[in-house]
Amino acid sequence: MTTEFTTDITGAVVDSLEDTADPRLRELLSSLTRHLHDFVRETEPTMREWERAIGFLTVTGQMCTDTRQEFILLSDVLGISMLVETLGGHRAPGATESTVLGPFHMTESPVRELGADIDLVGSGEPCVVSGRVLSRDGTPLPGAVLDVWQADAEGYYDVQRPDVQPPGNGRGLFTADAEGRFWFRTCVPSPYPIPTDGPVGDLLRATGRHPYRPAHIHFIASAEGHVPVTTHIFVAGSPYLDSDAVFAVKESLVHDFAETDDPSLAREFGIPSPFRHARFDLVLESR
Amino acid sequence: MTTEFTTDITGAVVDSLEDTADPRLRELLSSLTRHLHDFVRETEPTMREWERAIGFLTVTGQMCTDTRQEFILLSDVLGISMLVETLGGHRAPGATESTVLGPFHMTESPVRELGADIDLVGSGEPCVVSGRVLSRDGTPLPGAVLDVWQADAEGYYDVQRPDVQPPGNGRGLFTADAEGRFWFRTCVPSPYPIPTDGPVGDLLRATGRHPYRPAHIHFIASAEGHVPVTTHIFVAGSPYLDSDAVFAVKESLVHDFAETDDPSLAREFGIPSPFRHARFDLVLESR
Repeated sequence: MTTEFTTDITGAVVDSLEDTADPRLRELLSSLTRHLHDFVRETEPTMREWERAIGFLTVTGQMCTDTRQEFILLSDVLGISMLVETLGGHRAPGATESTVLGPFHMTESPVRELGADIDLVGSGEPCVVSGRVLSRDGTPLPGAVLDVWQADAEGYYDVQRPDVQPPGNGRGLFTADAEGRFWFRTCVPSPYPIPTDGPVGDLLRATGRHPYRPAHIHFIASAEGHVPVTTHIFVAGSPYLDSDAVFAVKESLVHDFAETDDPSLAREFGIPSPFRHARFDLVLESR
Repeated sequence: MTTEFTTDITGAVVDSLEDTADPRLRELLSSLTRHLHDFVRETEPTMREWERAIGFLTVTGQMCTDTRQEFILLSDVLGISMLVETLGGHRAPGATESTVLGPFHMTESPVRELGADIDLVGSGEPCVVSGRVLSRDGTPLPGAVLDVWQADAEGYYDVQRPDVQPPGNGRGLFTADAEGRFWFRTCVPSPYPIPTDGPVGDLLRATGRHPYRPAHIHFIASAEGHVPVTTHIFVAGSPYLDSDAVFAVKESLVHDFAETDDPSLAREFGIPSPFRHARFDLVLESR
C-alpha cells in the first residue's frame, strides 16, 4: 500500500508533476527537480547544512523591499542571471550584446528630452553619451526608446540614497530623433560594490570574493519591429573589468569615455570643453 | 583586458570560489553552481520566466514568520528535504528509518511526564502511543529523550491556530524510563493539507497536486552515545499514504493504531477502554 520512495524520490517528484496544466512549467520544474536532486546526491548535505541553506534563502527573501532585490543579487553573483541573459539573447551577429538587468531597474525612469542631464546633483565628472540606434543592416531607428540608469559618482543608485539623491537621479527615458540619434549628459560612472549588508554580502565574504562591479551605465533599448536588448556600457580602463562580481562584462560592451577638446561639439551638447565623451551605436535585431 | 565569459560563465563562477576559507562550503557552492547552470542550459529560461522565479523565491521568503516556514515547505514538496534526510541518514540495518523534519518543529516542546496527554483540548479520538527506545542490539536506552509533535484532529498544529490551541498543544518532550519505555496519550492524528495560502500552495495548484499528508506523529529520538533520528510514525490505513505531498512515507514507519479492549492496560494508561493504541520501538544506531 505504501510506496517505496527511498531509491527513487526524484522519479516520484517528477511523476507528481504530470497533471501540470502548462507544459512549459512542467518542463522547468521537472528539470529543476532533477538537477537539484543531482546536487543533493553529489554533495549529501547534512541536516545542519540544509537548515543553514533554508535560513539563508529565508533571510534573502526577507531582505527584499521595494528598493532592494536580494534574490536578483544572489542570482547575479552565482552567474545565473548572466547565463539566462546570454542564452536567452540569441543575438544575431552584429547586434549589440546583452548583459544582466541587475537589481536596480525597479522604478520608472523619468521621460527626458534628448540632451538632458541625468546627473541631477552634479556629483561627478561631466560627460556626454551619444550614438545611434540602428537595425542590423545599418538603418537608423527613429523613435527607438532608451531606458537608461546608472549609479552616481559615489557608486549608489537613487533608490539606495534617497537622502542625498532625488528620485530619478541617474535615470532617463529617451526617444531617439528622426535619424535614430540619442545623446544625453551625465557623470562618468564609478565602480561600486553591490550591497553587502545582506546575506549575499555574507556569501561573498565567506567565499573570499570582492563585491565590486566595474563602472557602467545600464540600457534597455527597444524599437518597433525589433527585439529589445538589456545591456550595459562599461567604462574602458575601469577597475574590476576582469573580475565583475556578477560576471556581466562582455568585451564588445566596453567603450572609451575619452576626454574630448572640441569646442563646437561642446557647444552642440551645451557642456564646457574639454569633456568626457562616450560614443557608441546600439544595434537591434529585427523580429 | 576583459575576460570572455560568454562560453564559460560556469567556469568563471566556480573559479571565483577558490578563496573560500571553508572547503566544504566551496564544494557545496561549486556543485550547486554547476547543477543550477546545467538546469539553465537545459531549459533556457526566458527573462520573463527568470523574473517569475525571482518573484516566487522572494514571496516565499517573505511568507516566513516565527510560525511559518515556507522555504521548508518548498523543499518538502520538491522532495529535497526527503532526499537530504534519506541520504544523510545512512541508517544501519534495523535502526528506525528517518523522514523529514517538516516546517512545524519551531517551538520548544514542553517537558512532560510519561503518560501525560499531549492533546490539551480533547479534540479527537483518544489513543495511547507506547514503546521502547532501544539500541540496535536490543539494549534498552533509559533516559532516551523523545521530542514529539503532531497536528490536532482537525489537522492543525498549535502555532497555526493560536486562537483555539494553547501553546504546546500536541507537543511533548518525554524521557524514557529505566527500561527505555515511553508512553503518552494523545488523539489519533488526521490527514491534513500543508498550508496552501502561500506560494507553495500556488505551486501545488499550478501542478495539479493535492496538498495532503497522511496522518502522522513526528518524533526526534535521541540517547547518549547514539545517533538521533528525526522521523514520523504514520497511521496505517490513512488516506494519502501513497501520495504524501512531501514524499515522506516509508513503509517501516507505518503502524497500526488498533482499537484495544484491554481493561488492565486501559487502567495502566489511565484511559477508558476500549481505546486506540499504537505500539512500536524506536531503534537508534550507536555512534
